[in-house]
Amino acid sequence: MDDGTARENLLARAVRILEAFDADHPSLPVAAVARRADIPVPTTYRLVAELVDLGLLERGSDRRVRVGVRMWELASRSSETVSLRDAAIPFMDDLHAAVRQHTQLAVLEGDEVLYLERKSARGAEVVNITRTASRLPAFACSSGLVLLAAAPVDVQERVLASPLEKLTPYTVTDPAELRRQLAETRYRGFAAVRGWVHVQASGVAVPIHGPGDQVVAALSVIIPNEEGRVAPVVPALMATARGIGRALGATAGPTA
Amino acid sequence: MDDGTARENLLARAVRILEAFDADHPSLPVAAVARRADIPVPTTYRLVAELVDLGLLERGSDRRVRVGVRMWELASRSSETVSLRDAAIPFMDDLHAAVRQHTQLAVLEGDEVLYLERKSARGAEVVNITRTASRLPAFACSSGLVLLAAAPVDVQERVLASPLEKLTPYTVTDPAELRRQLAETRYRGFAAVRGWVHVQASGVAVPIHGPGDQVVAALSVIIPNEEGRVAPVVPALMATARGIGRALGATAGPTA
Repeated sequence: MDDGTARENLLARAVRILEAFDADHPSLPVAAVARRADIPVPTTYRLVAELVDLGLLERGSDRRVRVGVRMWELASRSSETVSLRDAAIPFMDDLHAAVRQHTQLAVLEGDEVLYLERKSARGAEVVNITRTASRLPAFACSSGLVLLAAAPVDVQERVLASPLEKLTPYTVTDPAELRRQLAETRYRGFAAVRGWVHVQASGVAVPIHGPGDQVVAALSVIIPNEEGRVAPVVPALMATARGIGRALGATAGPTA
Repeated sequence: MDDGTARENLLARAVRILEAFDADHPSLPVAAVARRADIPVPTTYRLVAELVDLGLLERGSDRRVRVGVRMWELASRSSETVSLRDAAIPFMDDLHAAVRQHTQLAVLEGDEVLYLERKSARGAEVVNITRTASRLPAFACSSGLVLLAAAPVDVQERVLASPLEKLTPYTVTDPAELRRQLAETRYRGFAAVRGWVHVQASGVAVPIHGPGDQVVAALSVIIPNEEGRVAPVVPALMATARGIGRALGATAGPTA
């Protein structure tokens, strides 16, 4: 039992060390890794050394450590995430060229939406707070509504039963109203939310189908809140999502 | 000591399990993971369960396991590899549109070249055996010559002292001749090799500089072996590599 516990802690600790790095902290001194991972400094030094030996971390000339190229390689050689992203990116470029607004690809990860790719529009009219590999609560954004609407009922109910915190004064957190929004999303084939993530921006999302016609991802654009802006982007989103789906082996796709 | 050894083995074993998956084996039954990772089946079952709990592996409905989206997320949130790839891809699209041949981005990883991205040309005239996240021996390809030419002498000599195996009858494996090729690559600012990886194809590569004007990657195209094909692609490669370098913060770049 002791052996099992120690083992479990070790792998979990190694993951916590990797989690200490993010877009704002791409490299860190080992002491800062220890603090962010909440692991004693001597243990962190030992684990960091082992992770460096395995190539999962790299040591810079400045004695700071960062995530190693081996992590990318292990994640990329076989992952469905990378296949989905690679299939979607050319279509997202086309959509982005057509609508000139921030364009995003997301999947459901637990109760959250994980953004796999984000095309930032230099001339876009609105802010966008997401980054590639960042997350948002699934109930609170258009991509999340699309993905939850296609998820099993037990997943929907687990999310709706969890504490739902507003991101802005306009974020809907009432479970009954969210249930209605999910039904509406299924009926219309897309989700549009106004000011839920950022007061000045609306998100519009459609589902992407994969092999077996399961919903595997959501495609979204961020547009200004003005009236009459949602309808024109929906057909472009649906056409693009169908293209990505076909590249993945789907025969179905979103329809208006 | 026992504790340290067990720990070391555990992390190394977890990595071996992740290594069992590749483009030809994106999902595997646990017994096949055990065989490919050379770890006893009961231990593999336990480690796979822990890796699934941590999200690094995912279990499919078919009881096969595959690399989890969490691996991609941990690798992507902060990695220089992803920054380099994201900076390079738009420029590679432009180069690819201009030259209509397979276009590749690679870094040096140990004695090998790791391909971070590969734009496959539908209308390309030649085969290309690399894939994204695949590797080739550094001494045996144009990207490798460019990266080794910029590497410290001890790295060059370590590679040249290792067993050098021919990929085709034309691969140069004589250390003295390779040393001459590295000097030539530095002098000319690019590497061109004919039939070293595949008898019917030539590779042409240039360096990409990063912050501090260090060589951080190689950009290459695969072209037919015919005479007069190398010279026209070199300026396009150099211009593209300079663009990527500037996006990374370099002030220098390859010159003819």
